[in-house]
Amino acid sequence: MTATIKAIIETLTEGIEPIPNTVDKLEPGEPEAAVTGIVTTFAATRYVVERAIELGANLIVSHEGIYYSHRGGAEAWPNDPVCRAKAERIREAGLSIFRYHDYAHRRAPDLITEGLVEALGWAEYVEEHRPEAALLTIPPMGVREIAEHLRTKLGLSVVRAAGDLTQTCRRVGVLVGFRGGGSVAIPLFESGRLDLIVAGEGPEWETPEYVRDAVLQGGRKTLLTIGHAESEAPGMKRLAAMLQAKYPDVPVHFVADRPVFELL
Amino acid sequence: MTATIKAIIETLTEGIEPIPNTVDKLEPGEPEAAVTGIVTTFAATRYVVERAIELGANLIVSHEGIYYSHRGGAEAWPNDPVCRAKAERIREAGLSIFRYHDYAHRRAPDLITEGLVEALGWAEYVEEHRPEAALLTIPPMGVREIAEHLRTKLGLSVVRAAGDLTQTCRRVGVLVGFRGGGSVAIPLFESGRLDLIVAGEGPEWETPEYVRDAVLQGGRKTLLTIGHAESEAPGMKRLAAMLQAKYPDVPVHFVADRPVFELL
Repeated sequence: MTATIKAIIETLTEGIEPIPNTVDKLEPGEPEAAVTGIVTTFAATRYVVERAIELGANLIVSHEGIYYSHRGGAEAWPNDPVCRAKAERIREAGLSIFRYHDYAHRRAPDLITEGLVEALGWAEYVEEHRPEAALLTIPPMGVREIAEHLRTKLGLSVVRAAGDLTQTCRRVGVLVGFRGGGSVAIPLFESGRLDLIVAGEGPEWETPEYVRDAVLQGGRKTLLTIGHAESEAPGMKRLAAMLQAKYPDVPVHFVADRPVFELL
Repeated sequence: MTATIKAIIETLTEGIEPIPNTVDKLEPGEPEAAVTGIVTTFAATRYVVERAIELGANLIVSHEGIYYSHRGGAEAWPNDPVCRAKAERIREAGLSIFRYHDYAHRRAPDLITEGLVEALGWAEYVEEHRPEAALLTIPPMGVREIAEHLRTKLGLSVVRAAGDLTQTCRRVGVLVGFRGGGSVAIPLFESGRLDLIVAGEGPEWETPEYVRDAVLQGGRKTLLTIGHAESEAPGMKRLAAMLQAKYPDVPVHFVADRPVFELL
């Protein structure tokens, strides 16, 4: 049984109140086209585009945009040769790309946060789901032990740590993507009575400097950042399994790119 | 000869058109107080506050704010214990703190960019100063050689690299602080005909993914991020020397905090 792209999008957004001014959209794409295969991914990078073509998938469901900008499409840099070559390759391959960002985060619980918590094997420790974070009480673990757990479970080469590296943690906030920024993460330490925040990324002189100051003043707070893609890819991998269960006749693949940074 | 805080601020802002809605302000502080000593720094962290007190300096000139937010003062998180304890320590020590951000960047050339370029020993290679970047033509250097140069000159343990790690670079853009974000950095590759951008920081899925896609499409582009504080501290160090020359009787110190992140 074939499914249309429109049907897939309806599945992705069903049960969620329409989100005004959302960045989620099908572009490019033909809603009525039959789906030959689906690739879910953190971001439709050129590598992911090529993998989708190799896999015979004509729909990419991408958490972040194609053109390196939260709100911008190809029109953000219309004369840029990188954007133009990528747009041309997507067009000639007949790929449809659905950005699945706001609706993924708006699910209850947030699909992306839930994916990360599950990938860490911590689902049973969640005590509260807030829109911006999952709040957990874990069995007591040292910061370095938690960092090793994150590296092992997510296949990371490194975790960036700020604040107290020696404390034993119980209360943990898990924040995906750019939610490591101060406006989200800083008040959460108090309101969630947190020892530790695990986040994707955020400006370096906000939350990291906050936890460092906290320690110098006798407090115990820690921030571990694992990377934006690294924090959100597990949710998109989880999505692939959900879509596969719902559409057993459609080949569904999760594709991860390599880490974007190398340390020199 | 003593100087007032007001006189120092006039020196810092002189010759620059008033900037509307600037974040630069004296808070806390008494403009008419005599300056006993000045500390310049990237950010007035708790460590820097303690060093200023030890040094007998009653004025900190800080590029970033005290309370982990670009626009926020202590009122951003009025009940936060970290902010409250820090505010109380600053108050009881009688410290004045002047935020010197917008006016520093508005100098021609940008004081912070200039400080970084000089710290790298690259001043002679600057061909163009733009408001957001210095554009350089350097003697041909490989990416890994440049990364080592950055580490050595700035005392870094690591540089984060994306894109082409094998090319030989000539055209380099130097961007401080958060200017590594896509809206600033991406168009600069074309308009500045750049092989490489050296930046402080920026969202991970903007410029890093752009340069990675460029490479997969046969182009040669590289991004090296050195850290927000690491990119802006040299400009504040340069400022200390400038203030010392202008006020020979006032003890002026540059204070750097440790790197905020440790890699685990």
